[in-house]
Amino acid sequence: MARTGAPARTDAGTRAAEAGQPLAGEPVARACVVGASGFAGALAAALCWRHPRIALEAVTARTEAGRRLDDLYPRHRVPLELEPFDAERLAARADVALVSYPHGAAAQVVAELRERGLRVVDLSADFRLADLAVHERWYGPHGAPRLRDEAVFGLTELHRAEIADATLVANPGCYSTAAILGLAPLARAGLIADAVVDAKSGVSGAGRAATETTHFVSVDENVSAYGLDGHRHWPEIDQELRALGCDARVTFTPHLVPLDQGLLASCYVTPARPLDTAEVRALYEDAYGAERFVELAERPPGVRDVRDTNLCRICALAEPAGRVIVLAAIDNLWKGAAGQAIQDLNLMLGLDEAEGLR
Amino acid sequence: MARTGAPARTDAGTRAAEAGQPLAGEPVARACVVGASGFAGALAAALCWRHPRIALEAVTARTEAGRRLDDLYPRHRVPLELEPFDAERLAARADVALVSYPHGAAAQVVAELRERGLRVVDLSADFRLADLAVHERWYGPHGAPRLRDEAVFGLTELHRAEIADATLVANPGCYSTAAILGLAPLARAGLIADAVVDAKSGVSGAGRAATETTHFVSVDENVSAYGLDGHRHWPEIDQELRALGCDARVTFTPHLVPLDQGLLASCYVTPARPLDTAEVRALYEDAYGAERFVELAERPPGVRDVRDTNLCRICALAEPAGRVIVLAAIDNLWKGAAGQAIQDLNLMLGLDEAEGLR
Amino acid sequence: MARTGAPARTDAGTRAAEAGQPLAGEPVARACVVGASGFAGALAAALCWRHPRIALEAVTARTEAGRRLDDLYPRHRVPLELEPFDAERLAARADVALVSYPHGAAAQVVAELRERGLRVVDLSADFRLADLAVHERWYGPHGAPRLRDEAVFGLTELHRAEIADATLVANPGCYSTAAILGLAPLARAGLIADAVVDAKSGVSGAGRAATETTHFVSVDENVSAYGLDGHRHWPEIDQELRALGCDARVTFTPHLVPLDQGLLASCYVTPARPLDTAEVRALYEDAYGAERFVELAERPPGVRDVRDTNLCRICALAEPAGRVIVLAAIDNLWKGAAGQAIQDLNLMLGLDEAEGLR
Amino acid sequence: MARTGAPARTDAGTRAAEAGQPLAGEPVARACVVGASGFAGALAAALCWRHPRIALEAVTARTEAGRRLDDLYPRHRVPLELEPFDAERLAARADVALVSYPHGAAAQVVAELRERGLRVVDLSADFRLADLAVHERWYGPHGAPRLRDEAVFGLTELHRAEIADATLVANPGCYSTAAILGLAPLARAGLIADAVVDAKSGVSGAGRAATETTHFVSVDENVSAYGLDGHRHWPEIDQELRALGCDARVTFTPHLVPLDQGLLASCYVTPARPLDTAEVRALYEDAYGAERFVELAERPPGVRDVRDTNLCRICALAEPAGRVIVLAAIDNLWKGAAGQAIQDLNLMLGLDEAEGLR
Repeated sequence: MARTGAPARTDAGTRAAEAGQPLAGEPVARACVVGASGFAGALAAALCWRHPRIALEAVTARTEAGRRLDDLYPRHRVPLELEPFDAERLAARADVALVSYPHGAAAQVVAELRERGLRVVDLSADFRLADLAVHERWYGPHGAPRLRDEAVFGLTELHRAEIADATLVANPGCYSTAAILGLAPLARAGLIADAVVDAKSGVSGAGRAATETTHFVSVDENVSAYGLDGHRHWPEIDQELRALGCDARVTFTPHLVPLDQGLLASCYVTPARPLDTAEVRALYEDAYGAERFVELAERPPGVRDVRDTNLCRICALAEPAGRVIVLAAIDNLWKGAAGQAIQDLNLMLGLDEAEGLR
Repeated sequence: MARTGAPARTDAGTRAAEAGQPLAGEPVARACVVGASGFAGALAAALCWRHPRIALEAVTARTEAGRRLDDLYPRHRVPLELEPFDAERLAARADVALVSYPHGAAAQVVAELRERGLRVVDLSADFRLADLAVHERWYGPHGAPRLRDEAVFGLTELHRAEIADATLVANPGCYSTAAILGLAPLARAGLIADAVVDAKSGVSGAGRAATETTHFVSVDENVSAYGLDGHRHWPEIDQELRALGCDARVTFTPHLVPLDQGLLASCYVTPARPLDTAEVRALYEDAYGAERFVELAERPPGVRDVRDTNLCRICALAEPAGRVIVLAAIDNLWKGAAGQAIQDLNLMLGLDEAEGLR
Repeated sequence: MARTGAPARTDAGTRAAEAGQPLAGEPVARACVVGASGFAGALAAALCWRHPRIALEAVTARTEAGRRLDDLYPRHRVPLELEPFDAERLAARADVALVSYPHGAAAQVVAELRERGLRVVDLSADFRLADLAVHERWYGPHGAPRLRDEAVFGLTELHRAEIADATLVANPGCYSTAAILGLAPLARAGLIADAVVDAKSGVSGAGRAATETTHFVSVDENVSAYGLDGHRHWPEIDQELRALGCDARVTFTPHLVPLDQGLLASCYVTPARPLDTAEVRALYEDAYGAERFVELAERPPGVRDVRDTNLCRICALAEPAGRVIVLAAIDNLWKGAAGQAIQDLNLMLGLDEAEGLR
Repeated sequence: MARTGAPARTDAGTRAAEAGQPLAGEPVARACVVGASGFAGALAAALCWRHPRIALEAVTARTEAGRRLDDLYPRHRVPLELEPFDAERLAARADVALVSYPHGAAAQVVAELRERGLRVVDLSADFRLADLAVHERWYGPHGAPRLRDEAVFGLTELHRAEIADATLVANPGCYSTAAILGLAPLARAGLIADAVVDAKSGVSGAGRAATETTHFVSVDENVSAYGLDGHRHWPEIDQELRALGCDARVTFTPHLVPLDQGLLASCYVTPARPLDTAEVRALYEDAYGAERFVELAERPPGVRDVRDTNLCRICALAEPAGRVIVLAAIDNLWKGAAGQAIQDLNLMLGLDEAEGLR
């Protein structure tokens, strides 16, 4: 029984025993999660804590330092105390770091960890955009511009080989993940003449900050679009689809729906040439048939189907009138954030990609 | 105090007094609601019951006859007993009828009421499609084909004059209402080269039938698309936009979201020529500036903004890259069904269009 | 059409015309709502705005001054600009005030308005507790102790006569309203030997402040008790039941449930002598048979049954084994706050108690 | 990638490989789940499927036979086809059975499986009540009365030793589980003079049947009590507390709240002698300190804290005025049904109680 409510200090060994951390297999790496008080960081910590081959050595937080993580997130049951960030102390204890800081704040922290030799998966947007001018247009000046050359865009299904060798992985945004996975097979085949992505996200995607937007009463019994003057995940989608050869300008509109975890990207594609459903599905089968975390479905996926999993569930088809519709569902905190980060980390550590994610 | 639970029979006068039915102004018509046990029919009954110029004389239901409406829908507080349908008895007591039967079943009932001289607003799809071949493709054989000539498509903002004179009004579908209102100004101006409508509806739109689809556990924490092989509201949208001069083939995809009342149509238009936001808004201002039940907003509407109202709230803008985005929010049971029916009925009776709907 | 998003200043007359404010009957009072940016204050403003016999002249807010109320709450459609509080300016324009400030902050504001002769309904807790020592134990020092003598506890069903004559009415808390209405008939009859009140409230009861507690992700798919070391509505319940002759110490535990508006008080009473359901119901019929805003039901009420109404719906029964169970449902923002305030204001102004609340 | 939507038949080995079923350790038993199309049965199947020491050989269903379980419940990802029930065929393939039939229908099925030597955990109520007269009062005639002598009430924390040896375990009801675990330490100590249990359950507790009660629109934005004339879990609570020495008659009232999985029992106890919080907590520490699936918390538990876990999270305290309050939260489908069944099965098979439940 884990006594909760009165966080008691105990040494790490006792804690592990108390909480039943799996000991199967030898850990291949010691990890820390930097910024573990947010939704994505906390899940990253929970996934590391239960990971059979990773030893979670430290969790940090800026404003919540001193609290225990299982006090903040009882559900995750990670009995570690949040520490203030101290690169030196972390470097002495960890080989790899998952960083989950807000955009802008992450770059400096990543730089400090990289300087001390830790390999890093960064869940922020700071290293996602390869073109500095594009980054600055959407986010302002970059906090560690030279480090950007190291960064690999961490969508496993597109960049598996580079991720395995990377010292710094930039985990994609949640919307980007669903939109890019949804459109990549068509983009790569040069089949996108025009595309609209209408995306619906649960509220955990808006983060832990308590604002008018995340107030229960604002969200409950509501659905609305936002970010109409440009959402920051758009340049990621644009970058990755262009890299695959698509030169159409995608319209992307996010919506907030009254649920916690889940994201659905409904993609409407005007194909460059007529396609039927069989041909579309063959394309997706080719692209994803061997993927562990992409599921192809004949019926439209619901976000419930993938909740608390690292899966992206996709249904693609062609309307008789010609439009191609692709529906891609993920859990925004798993495949859209922390789960994807673990998938990348597994690759970086030479582990089975699915380790700790089943 | 209205004693509930033990439905007592009382005469209409006592009922009115007991329940505080407004007596201001003389009623100009006696109404009945045929099929008042479903969500839309029950709301239509409630709106009639509280309407200052309409006397609600009877409510009918097929399977729930014998129960009191305020037992079935406590919230509506309509203390009338549901009767079995009997055209003769209704004709003796009512001048107008609101019919809220399932598609296919409505035609015959409407025919019986029309034969006896009642003017009818039909909330089903049976009289919405002017082209019989189109109707039959989507719904099968028609139950009262000759009566179709009388029918006017009941979207007030498009057909106000014909509705005022009509003997039979075919109330539009909920999705159709939002999509058509959202696109009509562009369609009329010949500005739609291509369009996608991604719509999100609350569960009341799926009706009162208890099915796997409407089970709380299926909907909660979920969002998914449906009707990908063609939704029956599409031909209504197509019919009305074509009538306005639009010859693009609109793609329409409905989604179910975890809320009760509310519908958002997100419309993505490739304009026939470049448009900026100012020009788009001027177009909508021209079209709807004088409308009582259309609200133009600068920010994206939420469905909460229009819940329990007959309003359609619209935000239209042009992306810098050229796409025009129109967001139209309604309450699917009000402007998308029963509220619209009352708006039409008001016109038919020569009343202020907003009577009983404020 | 009310143009939204671009708050334009217009004079009050035009505003009224534009928005269709009812003009039926002559207004009998000019009102202001002080603290109209919170959930209860905003609803109070909306109810005044639509009230046929009250002219809403001003709305104020502390942090949101300068914004339009229909920008903050589109759904309420009150096209007035929030002003900073200025007792002098308000006194020149209004005869009565509804004050909806946080506990502690209200007393001073109420004092300033009373000094200038306005009659006040205060929605805070500042004037609810007649015993100063009790008030101080729960809330600390009182901001306007002498003014307390004027205050009448504003639960209409218990204090109708005093409210009619009052210059200052202290509107009860939401939990108190449901618990007191649920238990009053038994208390008055001396039949409560022991009682437990287990109450469940929607999130709007926690107010508009964005906190960890009100974050969608904290509430969604959750239910939990809170305030176990004492909730501030308990002394109100205790005070009112004691005044009716009950000397049992009621246990009261509030719970938060994932919905917006609604509050259910489940009351478990050990009766002082054996009672059967018929006797219990007769007692409630006697107490509430003539009440406009209390509904007696044979089946357990749901909070949906009373949403957006000023009703308290009650079901009372005796278990065969002896316990008496009373279930009382209200809308916490209506009968539990703003609706009750209007009911009181109507009485104070000599109007029909239900005016503007139907 | 598991191809979904087009259920393909493959042999069990391929299926296991495809879906990544864990192979660690040798299976110690072959299991079948009888009635796997309901919520609890499907979760039982999923837990068996992923269980490291149990091989799931068959799943059956009455009305859904022929469909694949991962078609019915994509989220569980159990790629087996539902078979019609055939005791003979099951007996040839399985050593143990989890039966999840409706009350009344289970007894016969259990009898057929027991006759063929399978050890059974029955999730229905058919074997929960030891007193036949009590069973018949609540459920009518029993379908396999002689088999009742074998049955052990399957609440591990109370009957661990008997369960380990049992051939037939009667899994407790969800409400019973939370109420009994919440009250057992006080009952055993003879400290309950009087008790009220106010319980709140998510909708999955009402089962998969689509009814007016489980319709999204009935539940959403609602909370209400039900079963006021007696809920069938009451005699289970009564039986188990009496067996522990409690002779008070507990009042138990269930409520439905708008969420999927989760159940909170709020227990209000009048203690037989004065108790303070420290004494109460020591009692619970004694009772549950060594339990793997009971968590003692200092703050009130939320049902989110235990979602998708087999934990019961309990907070117990004494009010200054004397009442003892115990809050017990479980996931109704896990500790309240399928998780508890696996916990029992583990014991029956000599496995670690927590195997497959972490």
